[in-house]
Amino acid sequence: MGIKKNQFVIVGLGRFGSSLGRELIQLGYEVLGIDKDEEAVQEMSNVLTYSVSADCTDEETLRSLGVRNFDCGVVAIGDDIQASILTTILLKDLGVKKVVAKAMSELHGRVLEKIGVDRVVYPERDMGIRVAHQLVSPNLLDYIELSKEYTIAELAVPQCLNGKSLHDLNPRARFGCSIVAINKPGGIIIAPTATDVLTERDVMVIIGTNDQIEQFEATVIR
Amino acid sequence: MGIKKNQFVIVGLGRFGSSLGRELIQLGYEVLGIDKDEEAVQEMSNVLTYSVSADCTDEETLRSLGVRNFDCGVVAIGDDIQASILTTILLKDLGVKKVVAKAMSELHGRVLEKIGVDRVVYPERDMGIRVAHQLVSPNLLDYIELSKEYTIAELAVPQCLNGKSLHDLNPRARFGCSIVAINKPGGIIIAPTATDVLTERDVMVIIGTNDQIEQFEATVIR
Amino acid sequence: MGIKKNQFVIVGLGRFGSSLGRELIQLGYEVLGIDKDEEAVQEMSNVLTYSVSADCTDEETLRSLGVRNFDCGVVAIGDDIQASILTTILLKDLGVKKVVAKAMSELHGRVLEKIGVDRVVYPERDMGIRVAHQLVSPNLLDYIELSKEYTIAELAVPQCLNGKSLHDLNPRARFGCSIVAINKPGGIIIAPTATDVLTERDVMVIIGTNDQIEQFEATVIR
Amino acid sequence: MGIKKNQFVIVGLGRFGSSLGRELIQLGYEVLGIDKDEEAVQEMSNVLTYSVSADCTDEETLRSLGVRNFDCGVVAIGDDIQASILTTILLKDLGVKKVVAKAMSELHGRVLEKIGVDRVVYPERDMGIRVAHQLVSPNLLDYIELSKEYTIAELAVPQCLNGKSLHDLNPRARFGCSIVAINKPGGIIIAPTATDVLTERDVMVIIGTNDQIEQFEATVIR
Amino acid sequence: MGIKKNQFVIVGLGRFGSSLGRELIQLGYEVLGIDKDEEAVQEMSNVLTYSVSADCTDEETLRSLGVRNFDCGVVAIGDDIQASILTTILLKDLGVKKVVAKAMSELHGRVLEKIGVDRVVYPERDMGIRVAHQLVSPNLLDYIELSKEYTIAELAVPQCLNGKSLHDLNPRARFGCSIVAINKPGGIIIAPTATDVLTERDVMVIIGTNDQIEQFEATVIR
Amino acid sequence: MGIKKNQFVIVGLGRFGSSLGRELIQLGYEVLGIDKDEEAVQEMSNVLTYSVSADCTDEETLRSLGVRNFDCGVVAIGDDIQASILTTILLKDLGVKKVVAKAMSELHGRVLEKIGVDRVVYPERDMGIRVAHQLVSPNLLDYIELSKEYTIAELAVPQCLNGKSLHDLNPRARFGCSIVAINKPGGIIIAPTATDVLTERDVMVIIGTNDQIEQFEATVIR
Amino acid sequence: MGIKKNQFVIVGLGRFGSSLGRELIQLGYEVLGIDKDEEAVQEMSNVLTYSVSADCTDEETLRSLGVRNFDCGVVAIGDDIQASILTTILLKDLGVKKVVAKAMSELHGRVLEKIGVDRVVYPERDMGIRVAHQLVSPNLLDYIELSKEYTIAELAVPQCLNGKSLHDLNPRARFGCSIVAINKPGGIIIAPTATDVLTERDVMVIIGTNDQIEQFEATVIR
Amino acid sequence: MGIKKNQFVIVGLGRFGSSLGRELIQLGYEVLGIDKDEEAVQEMSNVLTYSVSADCTDEETLRSLGVRNFDCGVVAIGDDIQASILTTILLKDLGVKKVVAKAMSELHGRVLEKIGVDRVVYPERDMGIRVAHQLVSPNLLDYIELSKEYTIAELAVPQCLNGKSLHDLNPRARFGCSIVAINKPGGIIIAPTATDVLTERDVMVIIGTNDQIEQFEATVIR
Repeated sequence: MGIKKNQFVIVGLGRFGSSLGRELIQLGYEVLGIDKDEEAVQEMSNVLTYSVSADCTDEETLRSLGVRNFDCGVVAIGDDIQASILTTILLKDLGVKKVVAKAMSELHGRVLEKIGVDRVVYPERDMGIRVAHQLVSPNLLDYIELSKEYTIAELAVPQCLNGKSLHDLNPRARFGCSIVAINKPGGIIIAPTATDVLTERDVMVIIGTNDQIEQFEATVIR
Repeated sequence: MGIKKNQFVIVGLGRFGSSLGRELIQLGYEVLGIDKDEEAVQEMSNVLTYSVSADCTDEETLRSLGVRNFDCGVVAIGDDIQASILTTILLKDLGVKKVVAKAMSELHGRVLEKIGVDRVVYPERDMGIRVAHQLVSPNLLDYIELSKEYTIAELAVPQCLNGKSLHDLNPRARFGCSIVAINKPGGIIIAPTATDVLTERDVMVIIGTNDQIEQFEATVIR
Repeated sequence: MGIKKNQFVIVGLGRFGSSLGRELIQLGYEVLGIDKDEEAVQEMSNVLTYSVSADCTDEETLRSLGVRNFDCGVVAIGDDIQASILTTILLKDLGVKKVVAKAMSELHGRVLEKIGVDRVVYPERDMGIRVAHQLVSPNLLDYIELSKEYTIAELAVPQCLNGKSLHDLNPRARFGCSIVAINKPGGIIIAPTATDVLTERDVMVIIGTNDQIEQFEATVIR
Repeated sequence: MGIKKNQFVIVGLGRFGSSLGRELIQLGYEVLGIDKDEEAVQEMSNVLTYSVSADCTDEETLRSLGVRNFDCGVVAIGDDIQASILTTILLKDLGVKKVVAKAMSELHGRVLEKIGVDRVVYPERDMGIRVAHQLVSPNLLDYIELSKEYTIAELAVPQCLNGKSLHDLNPRARFGCSIVAINKPGGIIIAPTATDVLTERDVMVIIGTNDQIEQFEATVIR
Repeated sequence: MGIKKNQFVIVGLGRFGSSLGRELIQLGYEVLGIDKDEEAVQEMSNVLTYSVSADCTDEETLRSLGVRNFDCGVVAIGDDIQASILTTILLKDLGVKKVVAKAMSELHGRVLEKIGVDRVVYPERDMGIRVAHQLVSPNLLDYIELSKEYTIAELAVPQCLNGKSLHDLNPRARFGCSIVAINKPGGIIIAPTATDVLTERDVMVIIGTNDQIEQFEATVIR
Repeated sequence: MGIKKNQFVIVGLGRFGSSLGRELIQLGYEVLGIDKDEEAVQEMSNVLTYSVSADCTDEETLRSLGVRNFDCGVVAIGDDIQASILTTILLKDLGVKKVVAKAMSELHGRVLEKIGVDRVVYPERDMGIRVAHQLVSPNLLDYIELSKEYTIAELAVPQCLNGKSLHDLNPRARFGCSIVAINKPGGIIIAPTATDVLTERDVMVIIGTNDQIEQFEATVIR
Repeated sequence: MGIKKNQFVIVGLGRFGSSLGRELIQLGYEVLGIDKDEEAVQEMSNVLTYSVSADCTDEETLRSLGVRNFDCGVVAIGDDIQASILTTILLKDLGVKKVVAKAMSELHGRVLEKIGVDRVVYPERDMGIRVAHQLVSPNLLDYIELSKEYTIAELAVPQCLNGKSLHDLNPRARFGCSIVAINKPGGIIIAPTATDVLTERDVMVIIGTNDQIEQFEATVIR
Repeated sequence: MGIKKNQFVIVGLGRFGSSLGRELIQLGYEVLGIDKDEEAVQEMSNVLTYSVSADCTDEETLRSLGVRNFDCGVVAIGDDIQASILTTILLKDLGVKKVVAKAMSELHGRVLEKIGVDRVVYPERDMGIRVAHQLVSPNLLDYIELSKEYTIAELAVPQCLNGKSLHDLNPRARFGCSIVAINKPGGIIIAPTATDVLTERDVMVIIGTNDQIEQFEATVIR
């Protein structure tokens, strides 16, 4: 999905960092992975373009690894706030254009922003929110919050809607939300019409306000 | 977005567990949080409905906390695979209807599935993948993978598209992908028409195959 | 006592695992022993067919050791429940036909059964029971519980029975239990007759209900 | 199975000690359990007659607990050889009549014998041997070694022997070993005759030399 | 020496922090001392205006201690870079007007400056420099570096200068440096004249370039 | 500033010791640095004349390093009072002429003096005092305590004194203290006259009693 | 054996300190025992006049315990050289008249002497020497080294000397050494005469040079 | 002082063991020293005949070191009771003729005796007693307890006895005790007569009951 091939350096090859590196490689980018722990480096050595074991809070080390030539640095250090902060400031000072850092707490995030990080991510917090929504809405597969009010929801079509047409459901008229796509085993229908029929196992994509979608789910599904 | 108000028990109040609990509370559900660490419990005591410090690998403890009456249990234990497995089997054996567990590795996930967990989540791995996509595609705000092929992408409208109509872009004809919604400061336009005009700061929702969207981004944006 | 020569892999060379391996070797089988601790491996290197130091919670390691070719795997890990569970699932997934695992607690045993182990053993618990019986019955050398009711007991012949014939004792008539064998220094007498005479140092094998044998002991012996 | 009701003191309430204590209680004896670890004591407090948390290497402590009045002491300490030895000598010096101690190694066992222990037990070693025999002989349920040569084996009757009479098998003539009992769902047959018929699920008790029984198994079973 | 009486909060009551607090109290200011370690707090409780044991990386704690009302905060934490950084950002965010922080390394100092600290101090580094000068110049008691070039030096008058007048020494003409004061047991002579005579035990204050003073020392003293 | 080139041995290369060594090198002296920690030695290896990793509480080690040939030894050990004392006595006994030692507490200092150290330094305590004075007097850049009563203060000229002549200020008449030098960007004026004019950014050096200088600051500055 | 009843304070109640305290009490003196470890204090609480748990490196603590009033202080701290040195200097500074300290090494002993201790003892070293002599000379019970040359030895009379008179042995004439006393079950004979006869079980006290006694032993005894 | 040259093996080279070994070497014997700690072995390598680093609780190790050929083994292990006991039993079982062991407590000593050690030594306890006597009797240099009642004491001649003859003192008549030797700078006087005169710095050897000697000291000395 990228436009131009950049190079990434990832410091910290724990669960988040290694997953990030693996995906970047699959998307076709070059990735240098660094971790203090040799075992973690060993495990990623077949996956990443380069992987080295080093202490990233030492300026000389980072310089000798040539990190200044990387377009983007990701500080994905797991549990050591001090190492995360020191590594981040070194990456910025060495001239890495874009630095993204994982924060362990809101306070940690505030420090990262003050020292000039370009983006702070909170993987566990964000996944906690995402899983919460999926738990309370069993047909919800995934969703995007477009704004505080509007959401795109990807909903599994339940058994009770098997054979129903969009005309039958009529979500726009009854709830104000719209089905913008139906993903069927045979292919995706974008902007489906009233005569399109739902089958169990289909997945529908719906746009609306949180209330509209909640009403839709509560009334139509089960 | 839920249909019926359930009760949740969360074991493990680390970053993932506490974020999940906080969101469930905001969605209007009752949540019992349990953690071995008293400090973690203390911090969530004003947030959750109930919060207690206890060892969840002890059957008597779980029984006396009445966890069997909860509709859904989430085992969000951070780093102790043994505690995660033992707690999970106890929740299942005590009759909790739905048990969701966080896995630290693929192997851990396999054990959780064998002992009957209803859903395994990998927060750090999933967030790693999500952040990877956002890093390589700077206008990508969020996305849903509908299938291996199809994606819904939420893209920020860049400066270069300011004032362009959908007719100008013509994504369907040129790339095969469709813009199904435009989120503007004044309100969302669902199923926009060819005369709708994009403004910087708008957010467009686009559906298409991964290749189509990648082409669209590479050609149209910047 | 075996029919066909199998190959065994034992993970965990502590007191239980090393004793098991030593006995299998003496019974004429091939045994591969694996332990994380190099010293434990060293000590068994002259005893077992092969012995290696490795981390058995790593799938690649187990695969490279060729454990899939073994007929039977024994997970005899001493104190690490997590390692025990992860190793067990790997052995099963790699296709080891029969997997036996040592459980540290009843809860651990439950997990092992759920993940498909063929047999769970509780060495310390079982020996605790066995020693309890021997403590309360000083002449009891060993026993087999045939059912909840019936037991075969191996009893030392005490001084007070020296020179007594089975006719004198008449256990069948008086208590309902039968002496099915007498092990004498000169050789074993199977299905002894009423004229056979007991000598101190002989060992008699008796079958009966628990009550019958208890009565026999309480009345006849001392 | 005991003759006279004794009182037991068990030092060390780990897996072996607690199982032993539990069984002695079920056999109707009084048991005092002692362990340094309060949690272990807590767990057994509903099971044993008395249970206290104390350091058993301190003479005053043992004296104040009145251990001298107990008939039998069992030193079931798990992993601390020093504590095992010091406790044992104190129990002997305080006048406990019979002291049984669990040894962690052959060398530990030698020390225990030198300082006057009445019996040394090696639970893990003994269970290792027992499990080895069961592994190599799948129909073997349990066994007693009468001597180096003779064994009583409890064998499950396999499918292939369903409907066979003892006359058909004729173990005495063919192999030299004798079936001394058949345990059937309806009851036990002691000293069965040639016309007695085996059914799958029956259990037969056989006496013979190790070679005879091995031949019998190899030829007759499967 | 101060103009207006401020209030100070010192976080970290180690050797540097407690010495600082003690001196501020002697200068007539109010000081609140905070440390995680209760013993350190105890020792300073009779010295400082207030002293409390608390975790200063917790925003609520700092807020409840009312630190926002203090004019100046000193982060004198000894060895925990993470705590130093988190405390500093909290003090700034809570609105403490002036925050001074002790840095453990140059990199730590850089982070402190980025997050907005008003002054970074390096006590051990600065004392190292100061002691170096005193070691190489045995008569040097203290000094102020006015610029890279100019220094004020406080020199002990050695025995060899006993009875010499400033006219004898004539430092201005011979070396270019000036004696601006002589501290004698009887009182200080400011801007001494050529007839003033030096006595052993006097202390002279000399201003000049580093080279001039070095020449003066090397030629005149010993 | 030194007269004769001496050789220094520094034991302990922490923050104080390494800063001291670095400055001595810059002043043109030879320095041998010793520390138990190899990493600390490594970091200073490019700075000091020699640097070795060794245990300085071992007499043989010190002897083999030839420390007896050094003119001055500095025991700059950070946190280990025992090592500090033992090293100090060894340096004295080996015949090092002058030994300076860093004390962690007043009691530690007393021991060092008893065992014959030539000078005890308290870096953190001294810097605490110095920083306290600078905090309460914002224009105070540095100072020398000439006696309990008299101080030389280096004060920044504040905006409010911009353009004022010494005649305007007249410190001698009004407060009793004297301005003995003005450091201006263009050069230093020693013994300035009444017509000399102050400019913001100038630095003035003032001698007087503590009270006089305090009065001067309180009245004249701001 | 003492002349005047003194009061003793012992710091450190390990094996040496507690044995020393116990003996002083038996000799009729008052003893205050102090140790950091509460358990050690508890054990001696019935033995010593007073015993308290306190940190003796804190001047205030020692002062509040009134140690200055004691005639003699013994620093019997086991393994902490730092605590030993700091306690010793405090006892001296507080005015305890005589301070005896146990040294762990020769270097430790040198520091203790420098800081003014009245006597340094090396219990393990001294006992090592004493036991060495007893090992190589099996009849040697105890001895006093009067000088480098002369020794008083207490020798057990071996079987081979049973019935021999001093005239028979004639040690003075043959070896130059003298038997000054014979300790017999019935009483001691001081300055025995030539007609006194030795019996096995007697103990003789002999004075001579080391060589003389060695000759005597080698020739006369076995 | 020995008769025949034996070979000694010492296990444990701490303060007691190394002092013992050093003295045996000086007395002309061969000594093999063994310790787990390589540093301890290193330090004694120039002192002892042989010194090796090994684990002495392993039978194979002891066997391969040939300890069975040594006449006498000393188990001088410092703080590990378990290692002390296991090593002792191995030395006895391997056939070392005489085994001496250091006990850490009375209970430890009892175990050592039960397992057949030839002599138990308590260095710290014995030195505690010895030092106690010297503390309370300032002129007492050393002593031998001949029995519960009789002691030989080595007393320094105090200033007040300078010039006194034995006739003046008349200890036999006045107190019942005898001076059996006087050690003078010029040589030792054995069995001194009434005309022998004492000088300060002489040392007298006195035999008597404890009470007699105490009286003598209390009356005559000071």
